[in-house]
Amino acid sequence: MRKVFQAELHQVGEELIQIATLVKQALVGASESFLNADIDKAEEVISNDARIDFLQTQLDERAIDILALQGPVASDLRHIVAALRMSSSLERMGDLARHIAQIARMRFPEKALTASISPIFEQMVELDLKIIDAVIKLLDSKDLTYSEEISAHKARINELHREVFKTLNAEDWNYSAQVTVDVTLASRYLERFGDHGVSVARKEAYLVTGDWS
Amino acid sequence: MRKVFQAELHQVGEELIQIATLVKQALVGASESFLNADIDKAEEVISNDARIDFLQTQLDERAIDILALQGPVASDLRHIVAALRMSSSLERMGDLARHIAQIARMRFPEKALTASISPIFEQMVELDLKIIDAVIKLLDSKDLTYSEEISAHKARINELHREVFKTLNAEDWNYSAQVTVDVTLASRYLERFGDHGVSVARKEAYLVTGDWS
Repeated sequence: MRKVFQAELHQVGEELIQIATLVKQALVGASESFLNADIDKAEEVISNDARIDFLQTQLDERAIDILALQGPVASDLRHIVAALRMSSSLERMGDLARHIAQIARMRFPEKALTASISPIFEQMVELDLKIIDAVIKLLDSKDLTYSEEISAHKARINELHREVFKTLNAEDWNYSAQVTVDVTLASRYLERFGDHGVSVARKEAYLVTGDWS
Repeated sequence: MRKVFQAELHQVGEELIQIATLVKQALVGASESFLNADIDKAEEVISNDARIDFLQTQLDERAIDILALQGPVASDLRHIVAALRMSSSLERMGDLARHIAQIARMRFPEKALTASISPIFEQMVELDLKIIDAVIKLLDSKDLTYSEEISAHKARINELHREVFKTLNAEDWNYSAQVTVDVTLASRYLERFGDHGVSVARKEAYLVTGDWS
């Protein structure tokens, strides 16, 4: 029984990695569409998001089946519950990538960003990419040094997020409200993307250390 | 065994209602702080959010204990998994109320909103209050007509959310980027609050109809 359970749990872990890999692709496409006004990339990210949603639902169903059929013991249960939480965070990360692609689509053929603020966003995107990369490696290796890396990247994103607002409030920010709105939302989406990465890392750390937060 | 499980499940349901009631209080306080620049209300909402987070963690722990100790059958399991999802949505609703209070605190003693755009926000807040009220009644009664109500309120919020962006992009919107940023984020927070209400309602509907989405 326990052997079957371990195999099932391993499968859930593989599925989480599969979803995280699609989330990474979504972020890559979304950031290209957003930074370069690439409409094809934007459409691709938007239509591919359904796949992430589907895989999440499937993983949830599988997790519930495992609980029902295997009646796992307490420590194993926590793995299932953590997997449910992690799949939920990953699905949201996919949504946030889609939202960024949607801004790009809405502004096409214009770029959503001004040249002056683009460098901050390039840095945020790079950090979010590092976060989702580290999430994939963490899910695969269970090596908690990735979890610390993720937190460090997120702290830097928070700084950049504040820098965006400082830029918007500076005297030389003379762009339309439209641009201000796009910049505000995109910055928020990229910041939230990182938050969910941190959540996934915390759940994984909890499975290793036993401290839920 | 099954009787014990039913009692435990009932307790989880009561805790969800307790959290939802605190979320309602948070939204009431947040909207007062935000619409009237009331710093005391803002501080109250911000400090009370920890209570919601604590209750969510406690509910999660209880849910895991029930799974471990009772080894519930498949249909009961879904109740537990749905409760975990619902507690997560409710916790986020509390966060969003806190974010709104944080905007109010940041702008104090000024109001974050211009007089011209306040009426749209008053309507959004009213609809979000109707949503959290309906969530509480739905959790208590399991009557799915509340679920339909929630969806209808959310559709109206989406319209108002778009109306906010129309207002920001109109020629006569001549306010600072600061105000534009606050309005954008607050509208997003109120829109997301409604989304989470819809999520809770869907999970409850799923428990009744069996259709997870």
